[in-house]
Amino acid sequence: MTTPPAKGLFLTFEGIDGSGKSTQCRMLAEALQAQGRDVVLTREPGGSRGAEEIRSLVLEGDPDRWSAETELLLFTAARRDHLERTIEPALAAGKVVICDRFADSTRMYQGLSRGNLRAKVDKLHEMMITREPDLTLLIDMDPEVGLSRAKGRQTTEERFEDFGIELQQKMRAGFLALAQEFAPRFRVIDGNRPVDTVAADVLTTAQAALS
Amino acid sequence: MTTPPAKGLFLTFEGIDGSGKSTQCRMLAEALQAQGRDVVLTREPGGSRGAEEIRSLVLEGDPDRWSAETELLLFTAARRDHLERTIEPALAAGKVVICDRFADSTRMYQGLSRGNLRAKVDKLHEMMITREPDLTLLIDMDPEVGLSRAKGRQTTEERFEDFGIELQQKMRAGFLALAQEFAPRFRVIDGNRPVDTVAADVLTTAQAALS
Repeated sequence: MTTPPAKGLFLTFEGIDGSGKSTQCRMLAEALQAQGRDVVLTREPGGSRGAEEIRSLVLEGDPDRWSAETELLLFTAARRDHLERTIEPALAAGKVVICDRFADSTRMYQGLSRGNLRAKVDKLHEMMITREPDLTLLIDMDPEVGLSRAKGRQTTEERFEDFGIELQQKMRAGFLALAQEFAPRFRVIDGNRPVDTVAADVLTTAQAALS
Repeated sequence: MTTPPAKGLFLTFEGIDGSGKSTQCRMLAEALQAQGRDVVLTREPGGSRGAEEIRSLVLEGDPDRWSAETELLLFTAARRDHLERTIEPALAAGKVVICDRFADSTRMYQGLSRGNLRAKVDKLHEMMITREPDLTLLIDMDPEVGLSRAKGRQTTEERFEDFGIELQQKMRAGFLALAQEFAPRFRVIDGNRPVDTVAADVLTTAQAALS
């Protein structure tokens, strides 16, 4: 008798900058690994060699170097590579894939903050990506708190964090709207609480999906 | 009384590798400039700063580093940037834009030689590019001649020239099929003749479109 292979699970984290989602990704990966699960921790844009190169092309340099449309095509190219090279092989091998941002970030950022490209985002996704996460954890947080956390970090990739509080509030609302639109796979986690409390909540939610 | 602005014209060259189209692009640009026309000579993939960076990402390195789908998205991103930054501004200023390869190359290469992605090529074009050339000159040539010319060049971008004679023959047929499909804007030029004879033919054809 052989043990049946573990069920692969594709889990994404979304939220505004400074919401603590990257920390939560790491903490969840460690907790699941401690339970003996095989975990791949990845991120977007990026997550594969080619996608990381595209990420550099998009996020570094003059913010106006690409139009919103070109940027959308580049992000979709990066996502396709990430999916083919990292995500799909890991899921096929029964691993848990934890991804810091995925298509919902594109829906929100490109659809809301850079001209309304949501229809194009959806068509491109349908044509070139298709895959949706099994579970998406939205770390929801007051933008005032999020922004002050994000500003504390040093990075050359300033673009998404340089929008100011009003836009961060629109983005929070945008993510909450996506959580409604794709309700069956979304869980909204209150990120205003202490990190360990949030992490315990995240772990319980992920384990429910894994069992 | 002011002179009306010159009519912008978007002129593309297509053909298999070694067909002599790059030489013909240059010769036509020089001939039109000698007649006082304002000419922008450009190429794909590439033709703008961003698009040239994407070109390097796609064409250099391991031929298997990108899937056909990812490559198609990257080429479309490059074309969008090229269109926005180089082609459209030049046409708006009444210039003649001569471009060495454009969307027809993608239709042919991605549709024919790398798995049949023609439907995706068309959808992406319709969604993100739209623009078609006013006139496309297909330099048609016996692949045996074309291949021997291409092999004589030194380049780090070997990919499109490394397919062998049988595939070159399929590509020639693919371009001729496109010339039928988009007949009103295509002119097929016999590229087997001496360079100056071809150039004279090209100039006459371009001038007819300009007048």
